[in-house]
Amino acid sequence: MTSKYAEAGVDVRKRGIEVFRKSVDNLFPKAFCVVTADPESPEYGLVTHTDSAGSKPVQAYLQWKETGDFEWFRGLAQDVLAMNLNDISCVGAVPINFVDYVALNPFRIDKKKLLEELNSGFTENLELLTEYGIKILFSGGETADLPDLVRTLDVSATMNGRVKLPEVITGQKIKRGDVIIGLRSGGKTKYEKKENSGIMCNGLTLARLCLMHKSYQEKYPEILGEADLRRHYGRFKFDNFIDELGMPIGEALLSPMRFFAPVIFKILEKCRPSISGLVHNTGGGQTKCLAIGENIHYIKDDLLEVDPIFRLIQKESREPWKNMFEDFNMGVGFEVVADPLEAECLLSLSEAFGLEAKVIGRCEKSDRRNKLTIESQFGTFEYQ
Amino acid sequence: MTSKYAEAGVDVRKRGIEVFRKSVDNLFPKAFCVVTADPESPEYGLVTHTDSAGSKPVQAYLQWKETGDFEWFRGLAQDVLAMNLNDISCVGAVPINFVDYVALNPFRIDKKKLLEELNSGFTENLELLTEYGIKILFSGGETADLPDLVRTLDVSATMNGRVKLPEVITGQKIKRGDVIIGLRSGGKTKYEKKENSGIMCNGLTLARLCLMHKSYQEKYPEILGEADLRRHYGRFKFDNFIDELGMPIGEALLSPMRFFAPVIFKILEKCRPSISGLVHNTGGGQTKCLAIGENIHYIKDDLLEVDPIFRLIQKESREPWKNMFEDFNMGVGFEVVADPLEAECLLSLSEAFGLEAKVIGRCEKSDRRNKLTIESQFGTFEYQ
Repeated sequence: MTSKYAEAGVDVRKRGIEVFRKSVDNLFPKAFCVVTADPESPEYGLVTHTDSAGSKPVQAYLQWKETGDFEWFRGLAQDVLAMNLNDISCVGAVPINFVDYVALNPFRIDKKKLLEELNSGFTENLELLTEYGIKILFSGGETADLPDLVRTLDVSATMNGRVKLPEVITGQKIKRGDVIIGLRSGGKTKYEKKENSGIMCNGLTLARLCLMHKSYQEKYPEILGEADLRRHYGRFKFDNFIDELGMPIGEALLSPMRFFAPVIFKILEKCRPSISGLVHNTGGGQTKCLAIGENIHYIKDDLLEVDPIFRLIQKESREPWKNMFEDFNMGVGFEVVADPLEAECLLSLSEAFGLEAKVIGRCEKSDRRNKLTIESQFGTFEYQ
Repeated sequence: MTSKYAEAGVDVRKRGIEVFRKSVDNLFPKAFCVVTADPESPEYGLVTHTDSAGSKPVQAYLQWKETGDFEWFRGLAQDVLAMNLNDISCVGAVPINFVDYVALNPFRIDKKKLLEELNSGFTENLELLTEYGIKILFSGGETADLPDLVRTLDVSATMNGRVKLPEVITGQKIKRGDVIIGLRSGGKTKYEKKENSGIMCNGLTLARLCLMHKSYQEKYPEILGEADLRRHYGRFKFDNFIDELGMPIGEALLSPMRFFAPVIFKILEKCRPSISGLVHNTGGGQTKCLAIGENIHYIKDDLLEVDPIFRLIQKESREPWKNMFEDFNMGVGFEVVADPLEAECLLSLSEAFGLEAKVIGRCEKSDRRNKLTIESQFGTFEYQ
């Protein structure tokens, strides 16, 4: 089966990165994040995590070019913070600090104005998280002028977290009968100011190409690499209001990634012993759970409603539905694998934050390696 | 005075990054690196540092395209490790772990083969450093497929270090009468296998444009951004052997950055109380010392021999000599500011590693803010 996303240049299975596996100092190779022994504090694991906003900066760039408004870049600060914070929370780590890395083409972007927006974004978000008891220090970072490498800009960050070794959520405790609770990527929680499309930071390369109007690539050739092999084939201008989305399409594409960490930290505080796995549905989308646990058959048969942004992307790109669940989070941004006895309590903890949550499936035993069955309104799909 | 490097798209003064200053949690704002309080270990500072190999990956890409040999990418592993390790050693921090971040255009490069080279590079270098008592754990990282953002590839890393707070080299102790000891960027130490051109990782954008033959940009348009504004104007093919360099020019451009840390850690072990400042001459070249100390007039009047690679770049680019000292390290990769009574001892410690070192200048008082005078065979230049 051809994947439109693979044709667009992104391999959701990340083939190739396995070459690092043997070299990495990882105490729990089956956990969601690398946990490294801290030589100075033997009782703690250090979780140093790095991730970017994917190709979302290109969309922000496009909207800035069209409007002259640098504020479109601000959400990228939340994106890179959330990418990293949500990820490290999956092993139960508490954040310490972060650095950013901005690689840019100085011929294209006013660096100072860009950095001002990112700085405002970091400041606002760190303040918000502090209100929820999550303190993250900002340790600076690097801004690199790289006109020969970077067409527009790339934004990433590295975050450190720390976790007591006996408390690491390793995924090894996942067992037959555990439930999978899905936390929604779209909508609006009590700690957010705006409705979110649910897109997060993965699948953006496909989403941009299939949605954004082809005239943009002529107007701004710098937004498209390898233009001999691929193209924009969208029908929309960034400011087209789409009724089913309830927002302009550009806003939907730039919806900053939700912080799941406030909810996850509360869940861990109240129910840690019942939690066997935590999964942030980034690269790999809903198949991300395959990365943790051992010989588990994940069965998701009662998913959250698929948000309209994903339906629109599917309609425009004709990406097969099976791939859609690998390319995108499809409405489920985060998964909590837990003892079924705690399910009600977990759902109510999430809902107290205004974050929609639902038991979307369960775990069975698999004969060998992990597998995943998704039973959706679009068909039943198997992954391994 | 026009700077050829600024025309090439790189601002060595990094204007714009000051917007982050107020937001960064930095215990010692005048130290070489950000030192952040570690909430769990009040006696320690955490040094989380991020840096890239600059545009060196483009040169590696060119040489891989010309030869089919992926080994050209291997040195980038040393570059990003050395960039970060040398930097954190400047505040006296001892490394803990690192992560890498590779952003690439998957249409251009075989990801797996690239990552295999980087992995081999990391492994070899971590082994070498371990022999010198420097243990750095590898905590994985991120590889991102970003064909719309990245023309070829970008390689960076983030390293954590730790330092006892009373032992931080803050630069505040730098005083009138201190000597500046320069450690050489070129040549070959006892812990290295090959002669090094001394180029390190800064100035590569200018060096590539002025040295590499203009036919390359036609053959591989992906190596040059903003081709309407700038161009290759070099006379050389990457494999041209240049007598005065003692190596082919491509090898000189890809000479991996020296690890100064083995020498620096030995110096700190033996003479820490006499060391008032440590400076890694990366972005900003020999003017980097301006970043540390308070109201100091740095006078460098007896520099190390300027390595031939820098003379060649100047000759081909016609970059004014004053700028050359800002764009490049010009033969001095690292500076130790110390009490003159210890100078002999420091020189002999460095020479025991086969690393050429010399008293290149001294510190005077400045009325206000830091300034720098370079007295060289090419003229006397003032910076502030």
